Amino acid sequence: MALRKLLPLMDRVLVEKIAPPAKSMGGVLLPDSAVQKINSATVVAVGPGRRTNTGDLVPMSVKEGDKVLLPDYGGTTVKLEEKELHIYRDDELLGVLTE
Amino acid sequence: MALRKLLPLMDRVLVEKIAPPAKSMGGVLLPDSAVQKINSATVVAVGPGRRTNTGDLVPMSVKEGDKVLLPDYGGTTVKLEEKELHIYRDDELLGVLTE
Amino acid sequence: MALRKLLPLMDRVLVEKIAPPAKSMGGVLLPDSAVQKINSATVVAVGPGRRTNTGDLVPMSVKEGDKVLLPDYGGTTVKLEEKELHIYRDDELLGVLTE
Amino acid sequence: MALRKLLPLMDRVLVEKIAPPAKSMGGVLLPDSAVQKINSATVVAVGPGRRTNTGDLVPMSVKEGDKVLLPDYGGTTVKLEEKELHIYRDDELLGVLTE
Amino acid sequence: MALRKLLPLMDRVLVEKIAPPAKSMGGVLLPDSAVQKINSATVVAVGPGRRTNTGDLVPMSVKEGDKVLLPDYGGTTVKLEEKELHIYRDDELLGVLTE
Amino acid sequence: MALRKLLPLMDRVLVEKIAPPAKSMGGVLLPDSAVQKINSATVVAVGPGRRTNTGDLVPMSVKEGDKVLLPDYGGTTVKLEEKELHIYRDDELLGVLTE
Amino acid sequence: MALRKLLPLMDRVLVEKIAPPAKSMGGVLLPDSAVQKINSATVVAVGPGRRTNTGDLVPMSVKEGDKVLLPDYGGTTVKLEEKELHIYRDDELLGVLTE
Repeated sequence: MALRKLLPLMDRVLVEKIAPPAKSMGGVLLPDSAVQKINSATVVAVGPGRRTNTGDLVPMSVKEGDKVLLPDYGGTTVKLEEKELHIYRDDELLGVLTE
Repeated sequence: MALRKLLPLMDRVLVEKIAPPAKSMGGVLLPDSAVQKINSATVVAVGPGRRTNTGDLVPMSVKEGDKVLLPDYGGTTVKLEEKELHIYRDDELLGVLTE
Repeated sequence: MALRKLLPLMDRVLVEKIAPPAKSMGGVLLPDSAVQKINSATVVAVGPGRRTNTGDLVPMSVKEGDKVLLPDYGGTTVKLEEKELHIYRDDELLGVLTE
Repeated sequence: MALRKLLPLMDRVLVEKIAPPAKSMGGVLLPDSAVQKINSATVVAVGPGRRTNTGDLVPMSVKEGDKVLLPDYGGTTVKLEEKELHIYRDDELLGVLTE
Repeated sequence: MALRKLLPLMDRVLVEKIAPPAKSMGGVLLPDSAVQKINSATVVAVGPGRRTNTGDLVPMSVKEGDKVLLPDYGGTTVKLEEKELHIYRDDELLGVLTE
Repeated sequence: MALRKLLPLMDRVLVEKIAPPAKSMGGVLLPDSAVQKINSATVVAVGPGRRTNTGDLVPMSVKEGDKVLLPDYGGTTVKLEEKELHIYRDDELLGVLTE
Repeated sequence: MALRKLLPLMDRVLVEKIAPPAKSMGGVLLPDSAVQKINSATVVAVGPGRRTNTGDLVPMSVKEGDKVLLPDYGGTTVKLEEKELHIYRDDELLGVLTE
């Protein structure tokens, strides 16, 4: 039985990092320094939310498909089906990126 | 009197680790490096849940039989009937693995 | 006046450790290594329970006579009437052992 | 004006330690090792109780005259009228000793 | 404009230490060792009280004029009008001394 | 797809630092020492607010366009579209600057 | 646009320290040692107050114009319009000074 999908528990968020574009818009290979190292990722799955002191569920602030800005530190690396994914807590994520 | 079963207390979860497949689908003995060291386990038993600040029970987020993704650290090892089992707190478990 | 009994306060649990069987079922003296060092004990007495932030009593999760699995660390040793007993907090106990 | 009595504040308990019997029942002077060093005391006075997060008073779990089992550490020493007394918090006391 | 009076804020208590009697009842100058170093003081002024988590005021447990037993540590020294006074939090005070 | 906008999550505030005027009112180039290093910034975007222990949203204390005084420490640097911005938590900001 | 006024956020208090009188009542220049170093200040502005765990506003305990006694430590220095001011949290202030 191959375990392919991971449903995060509590207020955890499963994300896949977005590799920064190695080539500029014009297709020129960017030198490392120019590659904009923005720590962003796509949300793959979210947990049900954490419980408050009185046991109520706190709704999550991001949803599947959102593009999010990751903190510089934290996160747990998980390998699923040869893919490297990461797990963060909801309140560790800095913001949602939009066009 | 042989004590065979353990009912976890509070929000504890008793799990049995799933040993990663030593052979590939085709039956070839995998080298260590290739063995996908995914830290997963089967839930053997769960406690009733922890109490909130106001004394209410918080329902558990996993149940007996679930396949769960374990954190890299933590857990208490317990030997029961020659079997090595582990105890985690409910909120230490990262997620539920499904096909 | 000899003080013989101890009523634990708050969420404390008074236990007497169960010495692991020095002989196998067949009566053969087990070598140390084989002696299954399972950290279990019998509950001698329980306190009334701890208070929540709002002052309500939280019921205890074990009762007198239960066989419990102890954590590897913690506990306070108490000598009563030449007997060595131990005091744990309710939420330190890992689980209840049953046949 | 000689200040003789101390009314403990909040959840504090004023106790007087019970010196262990230096002689056995038969009157024989016990060697130090045999003297059962049980850390017990008599409650001299108790405070009104501590306040919960919402400001309510939590009733004390011991009362004047109780024999209590003290923890190995903690407590504040107070000299009143040449007597050495000790102050503990209610939740530091391990249990009430009875015959 | 000379600022002479200090109204403590929140759950603070302004006290003036009671110097222990240098002479015995009979008027004999006591050697230092005999001077009963009881850490007591008179309450000069009290604050309105601290706020609970829900914003309610918790009434103070001492009032102006009370004789209180001070802890061995803590307190902030304040000089007002050449007088040395001390500020403690309400829950740092050990007890109220009475005759 | 170029990700240009960042919606801060929870009680985070996205700000752009206000560079202190390099020239005096009269247009004279100020020496470094004279440049008033006031740590101020303009609010670019604010999150929805943090959750209380009971799960309710706490309204933010600043809004887009406010000029705010930053603490000397803290903040996370973020590069968006070649611009260097910073993220602070709502309760880290010291005050709102007005004319 | 010169930013002249600072509205403190949350439970912060903006104060201006009161320099102790360098001359005695009679006008004689006091030696440093005699200068009564009382750590006092005038309240310039106060924030709206902090939020409790349930999100309610806790009223501030000081107001603009109050003379307050500062703790020996803490506080953030702020330069506004060449004036050196300080920011404290409401519950750091020790008391209100009156004549």
